[in-house]
Amino acid sequence: MKIDTLEQLAEKLKSCENVTILTHAHPDGDTIGAGFGLCYFLRSVGVKANVRNSDGFPKKFDFLYYDYADEDFEEQCVISVDVADAKLLGENLANYADRTDICIDHHFSNKSFAKFSYIDGGSCATCLIIYELLKVMGVKPDKRIADCLYTGIATDTGCFMFEGTSPEAHRAAADLISCGASAAAINREMFQIKSKGRIFAEMQLIKNMRFSEDSKIALITITNDIMDKFGVDRADLDGFAGIPICVKGVKIGITLKQQPENPELFKASIRTVDVDAAAIAAKFDGGGHIRAAGCSVRGTESEAAEKLLAAAKEAVC
Amino acid sequence: MKIDTLEQLAEKLKSCENVTILTHAHPDGDTIGAGFGLCYFLRSVGVKANVRNSDGFPKKFDFLYYDYADEDFEEQCVISVDVADAKLLGENLANYADRTDICIDHHFSNKSFAKFSYIDGGSCATCLIIYELLKVMGVKPDKRIADCLYTGIATDTGCFMFEGTSPEAHRAAADLISCGASAAAINREMFQIKSKGRIFAEMQLIKNMRFSEDSKIALITITNDIMDKFGVDRADLDGFAGIPICVKGVKIGITLKQQPENPELFKASIRTVDVDAAAIAAKFDGGGHIRAAGCSVRGTESEAAEKLLAAAKEAVC
Repeated sequence: MKIDTLEQLAEKLKSCENVTILTHAHPDGDTIGAGFGLCYFLRSVGVKANVRNSDGFPKKFDFLYYDYADEDFEEQCVISVDVADAKLLGENLANYADRTDICIDHHFSNKSFAKFSYIDGGSCATCLIIYELLKVMGVKPDKRIADCLYTGIATDTGCFMFEGTSPEAHRAAADLISCGASAAAINREMFQIKSKGRIFAEMQLIKNMRFSEDSKIALITITNDIMDKFGVDRADLDGFAGIPICVKGVKIGITLKQQPENPELFKASIRTVDVDAAAIAAKFDGGGHIRAAGCSVRGTESEAAEKLLAAAKEAVC
Repeated sequence: MKIDTLEQLAEKLKSCENVTILTHAHPDGDTIGAGFGLCYFLRSVGVKANVRNSDGFPKKFDFLYYDYADEDFEEQCVISVDVADAKLLGENLANYADRTDICIDHHFSNKSFAKFSYIDGGSCATCLIIYELLKVMGVKPDKRIADCLYTGIATDTGCFMFEGTSPEAHRAAADLISCGASAAAINREMFQIKSKGRIFAEMQLIKNMRFSEDSKIALITITNDIMDKFGVDRADLDGFAGIPICVKGVKIGITLKQQPENPELFKASIRTVDVDAAAIAAKFDGGGHIRAAGCSVRGTESEAAEKLLAAAKEAVC
């Protein structure tokens, strides 16, 4: 069933006790920020709550839960945050697929797998929804909650850089900074600091970057060899997809990622300027948005690259 | 004389006719955004106005003035924006040093060289002051002015990433986006796109990066050779100073820039985490802020590097 307004969502939330909060697999700043922000709020009003993730919580966001500990209770209510589809709960939370009570999400594509769903596809981040929910409830976030919600808004908007960053996202950031969010420290951790391995891997990728059509197309391939050589792990891959499209004059930037478990399978991220990225991805049964889309291709490294380059050439002409 | 309030500044501005607006030499997004934002506003209310820069206006900000043309009038009023010191007007505007009527600036260090000065050292950007000035005057910025003011606020806060990015900066951004500012396109131009030359120059610098004290100190040197080899010009140097401090674990990041006109002179940018950058710069008669400071050192490339590394080692111990 659809929950239409934040006021109705607030009412629903007030009836929850002993809450398990579900975040999506391969967690990002928005699902983690929303999960822990909601958890800390519930605990602050005396409601027992825990946060769950199929893959565990990455070290990168440790500043949000360094002293978090699970509470002991018999679960009565399950809330998912930033989870568009039950499949995205991941292997270890798959048993929650048909027993989620409330889903709070900002993906248009949300599959409404929960009993009650509050979906705002126009919102920049699930953390922005949680911020607005607390506002409707008359709650001023404490520093800890502010850190969580700022993290999700900042990461889902690329530090307010991406298309679609709304006035509401900026106004929420303003309030959260006033509530004590350590914005600069969070941004440094999220967007600036890179491991030496990551930096040297990037250099290798850039060195190997392929250009085509008078440099209107650029392509990099993250091979398993490069990942191993520089000791880069999956959590360190954020932002690689943005590299080729940042070269001046490039209209289509493609990032291929070889799959560790299947070296003849490559996941492609397509980013574009003035070109329909989703249409290129669709040629390989992929999809996405007009400026950012994805698909999978099979073959050797050079076969995969040639397939994508051929499709991109057609699109850029 | 000091102007204390935005209301007084607004009154002063209302009495201005035939205005020359001065921006600082080697112009950045804030001085350009404030200059053209103010100019377009004045023109919109029938006041003749032109913008001046000692070095001409860089191509990078062309989206703010691609169809700007000087107006013909006899100058009656001179306003400087984002100019902390008359010296910073540059060679070709030096004759304005003692005939600036109104100075609008956000630098604490402003030398009050104008007849009347409105200085708000606590503001993130001069563009933020202009935004607040228009608000006080009851003026809603049009799309063009919004683009100018957003550009200055975004560039001076590192796209809302830097320490000290205020709630007011975010609230202004929210309003300016509502007024039509093309935030994503501006951010792409300001923060994301890099020329091939710039990208390959960065790679060379990172390859040559020197680490010291268990990688707590990192140093890069931008030599004239590298600038020439990759065809990087001065306007393309933004952000290089931020490279060494982004390596995980680095507490002191130093960027040396060889001076084209004097190869035995290096300008040093010092960025720090948990270390006083200004104290390191002070050892070489430089100065700045606690986390970002600068100084000059003489010598060969390796002598300059050794001097800075020695000072940094003392500071990190």
